[in-house]
Amino acid sequence: MSSQETDPQGNPTPPSGKISRRALLGTVGVGVVAAGAGVAVGRLTAPEDTSANGDVVEFRGVHQAGIVTPAQDRMHFVAFDVITDSRDELVELLKTWTTMAERMTVGEEAAPDGALGAGTYTPPSDTGEALDLEAGQLTLTIGFGPSLFEKDGVDRFGIADKRPAALVELPKFTGDALEPARSGGDICIQACANDPQVAVHAVRNLARVGFGVVAVRWSQLGFGRTSSTSTSQTTPRNLFGFKDGTRNIKAEEDDAVNRFVWVDPADDQVWMGGGSYLVARRIRMLIESWDRTVLHEQERVIGRSKGTGAPLGQDDEFDELDLDSKGPDGHLVDVDAHVRLASREELGGIEILRRGYNFTDGSDGFGHLDAGLFFIAYCRDPQKQFVPMQQNLARNDAMNEYIKHVGSAVFAVPPGVEDGTYWGSTLFGGSRESAGNP
Amino acid sequence: MSSQETDPQGNPTPPSGKISRRALLGTVGVGVVAAGAGVAVGRLTAPEDTSANGDVVEFRGVHQAGIVTPAQDRMHFVAFDVITDSRDELVELLKTWTTMAERMTVGEEAAPDGALGAGTYTPPSDTGEALDLEAGQLTLTIGFGPSLFEKDGVDRFGIADKRPAALVELPKFTGDALEPARSGGDICIQACANDPQVAVHAVRNLARVGFGVVAVRWSQLGFGRTSSTSTSQTTPRNLFGFKDGTRNIKAEEDDAVNRFVWVDPADDQVWMGGGSYLVARRIRMLIESWDRTVLHEQERVIGRSKGTGAPLGQDDEFDELDLDSKGPDGHLVDVDAHVRLASREELGGIEILRRGYNFTDGSDGFGHLDAGLFFIAYCRDPQKQFVPMQQNLARNDAMNEYIKHVGSAVFAVPPGVEDGTYWGSTLFGGSRESAGNP
Repeated sequence: MSSQETDPQGNPTPPSGKISRRALLGTVGVGVVAAGAGVAVGRLTAPEDTSANGDVVEFRGVHQAGIVTPAQDRMHFVAFDVITDSRDELVELLKTWTTMAERMTVGEEAAPDGALGAGTYTPPSDTGEALDLEAGQLTLTIGFGPSLFEKDGVDRFGIADKRPAALVELPKFTGDALEPARSGGDICIQACANDPQVAVHAVRNLARVGFGVVAVRWSQLGFGRTSSTSTSQTTPRNLFGFKDGTRNIKAEEDDAVNRFVWVDPADDQVWMGGGSYLVARRIRMLIESWDRTVLHEQERVIGRSKGTGAPLGQDDEFDELDLDSKGPDGHLVDVDAHVRLASREELGGIEILRRGYNFTDGSDGFGHLDAGLFFIAYCRDPQKQFVPMQQNLARNDAMNEYIKHVGSAVFAVPPGVEDGTYWGSTLFGGSRESAGNP
Repeated sequence: MSSQETDPQGNPTPPSGKISRRALLGTVGVGVVAAGAGVAVGRLTAPEDTSANGDVVEFRGVHQAGIVTPAQDRMHFVAFDVITDSRDELVELLKTWTTMAERMTVGEEAAPDGALGAGTYTPPSDTGEALDLEAGQLTLTIGFGPSLFEKDGVDRFGIADKRPAALVELPKFTGDALEPARSGGDICIQACANDPQVAVHAVRNLARVGFGVVAVRWSQLGFGRTSSTSTSQTTPRNLFGFKDGTRNIKAEEDDAVNRFVWVDPADDQVWMGGGSYLVARRIRMLIESWDRTVLHEQERVIGRSKGTGAPLGQDDEFDELDLDSKGPDGHLVDVDAHVRLASREELGGIEILRRGYNFTDGSDGFGHLDAGLFFIAYCRDPQKQFVPMQQNLARNDAMNEYIKHVGSAVFAVPPGVEDGTYWGSTLFGGSRESAGNP
């Protein structure tokens, strides 16, 4: 790291002097790129906007962005199958993706020629639907699934011996109703932004240049965040109507972040130092059943008041969870309340960082909306954190009557890309020197 | 109409004095409702916000909101099957829906008791996920499909003789690949808002109280608008990366709106006077094919420059479309360019009002994103406007190589709900006097 300013997660603060897509189109003109020319990022049509780089989240750093970054409002998540057998092709794509991702997170097009590059024989190097849009605090976060390391007993890319012990498929939990077409994947990319079109554009362009190397296995749009990951954010509500993530780890809590989120190089595989593990679960909410349940029962199931979000028996959202006190009906927080079973008190001190999103994907074919929560958790070791937590919840949670886990995946999230490196360089080796253009 | 101020569409301008969900929760406290108590709508936590009612679109008026209303950023669209045989139950639901819709569009909960109503035996009358959210310019717009009037030869609700001649199922167009599970429906509701959670909340609550009377047939989330419906808006881009809807009818164009959007009572059925017809088409974009096409070909297919949106041969987005001039390669705007075939010049003067949204719904199961454009058009007579336009496009449009129509529906959109009336009262008769609570 240089002496550059860093944020609490060790990532350098956003650079200035980058050109936004809008600035490019509005002032420089079609097909001309003046990279790094000192033009401020920002909404040129609104000169009173002094937010400058507030719209940009730095891509490079010790850790990947998109983990402890204050959760943006919208998300597009994609899981890929790698369809090549060539390690070289895969590494080349990772380098290309890194270059594209870094560009898009500052609001630039995916590649220098861009949507308006006048190739006579080659298609445009950006798809164009974000041309007029700001950076939108876009973050792009990559992860590698267990099957990338070994699949059907085959060491596909010569990295089987680098698979961390923590990276194994999740066990089947009680009640799981997983759909293969919504589960697993060799590589995932989480795109979060405050404008959904910015997130969709990023995933689409990464998928586009992956043609022949990767294929989209599944993807999920999240329309609204269900967690806060910073003390600067208010707690949003999930589709049960409850505030969600009140006790979530916050970026500002250095001790908890270091203890529960970031992998220490001494944990297992050195290449994962500074990385994390991502668990994704598509949780269908049976909202019709929930909506026919009385408020008292809903609050008993969750263990919190619906209005304030306070633990039952308390007044304020952030009041301490009291798991011992009893009222006339028994424990204030019921023995099978969600908030109890997911609590660190119940789980021997375990915590995870949640970063989920609400979703609605049309109809389920039986007269109901297909809606729920796309759960994303980051943790230092899913086997020691997510798995015991979910085992406890899957067996005992009163909420199980109203949810169904229909998708599941786990990924090793490598450390941040520092200067001269690329997504996965600690795993595959080498620098980004040979990075090709898309 | 009273002497109240009206907007260009004849709708009264927003009233003041309503209470937002946030205001309710933040200042009045749990379970207490002070309806109409003169509290300004707005973000109480941000007193510098002086937008007052800028966040509210008036629900009542001569026409339904959500048609010429400046297109909001996000949409949730739902089509229902009516599953009761009882006209009374259906009418009762329409009255209940009207009351709920009016409340939600001003940022109130769906019903007075709300999410925190302490019913011992009854579930909450609002699902709560919008409790902390603003009104978000929510509009809710209802339409009635041909099958509501008659299905399998049965006059289900005694309204078969009120079916407008213009309301018949659309013909099969060349290339149509319609999925029944994404097509048709007895009733549709279009929810548009600037916050997707506000739109989803509205649809979910209307579906909730419809239990036993209606069932969700299909629904569609749109993450970004692809049309402007007001001269105050900039033209957004669709997932082909092109500006879309440059020549769309704008709310300010009174003559065009009256000629092409609003039904005249003399047209056919008197009850439809002031209404319109909604055509919905789920258009899958084959974005992988498109993305491998060179810019020159993309622009030839559309007939516009990708950067500026100007018609080919012109400089500015809003320059006149020149269909006659030729360049060295033939017509500046090719004979099968989309913009030519969809033009009023080509179609004997026909225009429609478009109000579509970009969508991305996961994967198609073949390694690609399931993405495209959810096309919504409003017109005075779909048989005379949308059908001939789409016939021309379906047969000849160069764009057909890159799109597939996979969903389709048409609905009669009744006129606006004026004081004392309900959604569909001009069709079913009576006033809202007997409106029940959800």
